Amino acid sequence: MRNLKLEVEYDGTDFHGFQRQAAMRTVQGVLEARFSRLLGEPIAVTGAGRTDAGVHALGQVVNFRTTRPVPIETLAAVLNRALPEDVKVRRAEEVPETFHARRAARSRTYRYTIVERDTPSPLLGRFALVTAERLEVARMAAAAQGLLGRHDFRAFQASGSAVKSTERTLYRLDCARHGDRVEITVEADAFLYRMVRLLVCALRAVSRGELTAEALQERLRSGERRGLTATAPACGLCLLQVSYEAAGRTETGYY
Amino acid sequence: MRNLKLEVEYDGTDFHGFQRQAAMRTVQGVLEARFSRLLGEPIAVTGAGRTDAGVHALGQVVNFRTTRPVPIETLAAVLNRALPEDVKVRRAEEVPETFHARRAARSRTYRYTIVERDTPSPLLGRFALVTAERLEVARMAAAAQGLLGRHDFRAFQASGSAVKSTERTLYRLDCARHGDRVEITVEADAFLYRMVRLLVCALRAVSRGELTAEALQERLRSGERRGLTATAPACGLCLLQVSYEAAGRTETGYY
Repeated sequence: MRNLKLEVEYDGTDFHGFQRQAAMRTVQGVLEARFSRLLGEPIAVTGAGRTDAGVHALGQVVNFRTTRPVPIETLAAVLNRALPEDVKVRRAEEVPETFHARRAARSRTYRYTIVERDTPSPLLGRFALVTAERLEVARMAAAAQGLLGRHDFRAFQASGSAVKSTERTLYRLDCARHGDRVEITVEADAFLYRMVRLLVCALRAVSRGELTAEALQERLRSGERRGLTATAPACGLCLLQVSYEAAGRTETGYY
Repeated sequence: MRNLKLEVEYDGTDFHGFQRQAAMRTVQGVLEARFSRLLGEPIAVTGAGRTDAGVHALGQVVNFRTTRPVPIETLAAVLNRALPEDVKVRRAEEVPETFHARRAARSRTYRYTIVERDTPSPLLGRFALVTAERLEVARMAAAAQGLLGRHDFRAFQASGSAVKSTERTLYRLDCARHGDRVEITVEADAFLYRMVRLLVCALRAVSRGELTAEALQERLRSGERRGLTATAPACGLCLLQVSYEAAGRTETGYY
């Protein structure tokens, strides 16, 4: 049995998230249906990150097992011919049979993009939050540093999830301005449910002066969620990359 | 009668071009239908550039006349509430009654975006041509300079148009690389039918060594179209801006 690892890119707009759901168009559902038909055997796909409805990916990683002898050199091209325009394979490789895309992942890197504009933007709004608000990026970046490291992040978890531990390690939380575009890049060993979008909202509250850096750290210590329950819209979020190496080594050349 | 000038942005993917056509979804058709319903009187919209099906715009300019006393300060916001997500007003101003968006325009600036990638890109492919080909940008940029100035551009006009004169003035034709993204930016007083997309294809032929800079200029002199009839895909093209000032002064800060 071969085990194949794929790097997958998708425009999340028309997907109800990554995870398979009956009667919903999901990334996992589309990959499994198309691959099964193409290869003529039932294919089960495992993903590294369960992106929510509307969230995009440049570098989602999945793996699946197959008995078929498709040459690895042409695999990405063959799979892409079977896939719709909004989800495509960027890279394919053969991996040891024990490799598991989710369990083996050392870290995930997401980027949240905000564009400052007084009017909605049909060209930029598909992949960014467009807002008339001007962000205080230096203040956000400074406050973000206080969240780095291993902490209980239960204050940054949306209700509706049931995980054993809410401890996570944040390796990176950068806020950078490029003209009227603000990018928040975050890397952690793993993320809680809606954690990135809750962090983005908290940083916008810091920008507005509604929350100090100290108050943000206090939320982390106390686990207090009050006033921090807003989540930033899905369209601004993108899973940039999943790392299987020692963590904290994500490169920044991606866009 | 008031005359109103709008700067309009649209994602051209789901439009059959700018110009009104019966039973087709076009930018002009959508603007006229929504504005007429909103203002309660028939509205006729004039556009500066007739972008083709699938071509995008960051800075299309239109004007229309109305008797309604909508305050100019809130006009963009009011119109945007009536418009779908893929076409929005960026700016609105009141102009003299003689202003005509097409006739008054001094120049149009378009950008064609190519992304070099070995696999299709769901995230980038909506607004760019994605190709595995690596472009020789320096060679393209050098050849492009030979096309600047006032010339008969009939060699760069697709069949199916009937204009009186095929003379146009090219103010700018830049080819620039930003990582794996190549941008071709072109400004002229006006463009012939599919002229930008024919120019882009000719420059790709230069990149491949299929056409020398001298042969390109010879095409211009002779008007010979043979071998230059391919047009680059619409999705890579975007109308950046329409200028009503002295030509050749387009700023580059746009994206």
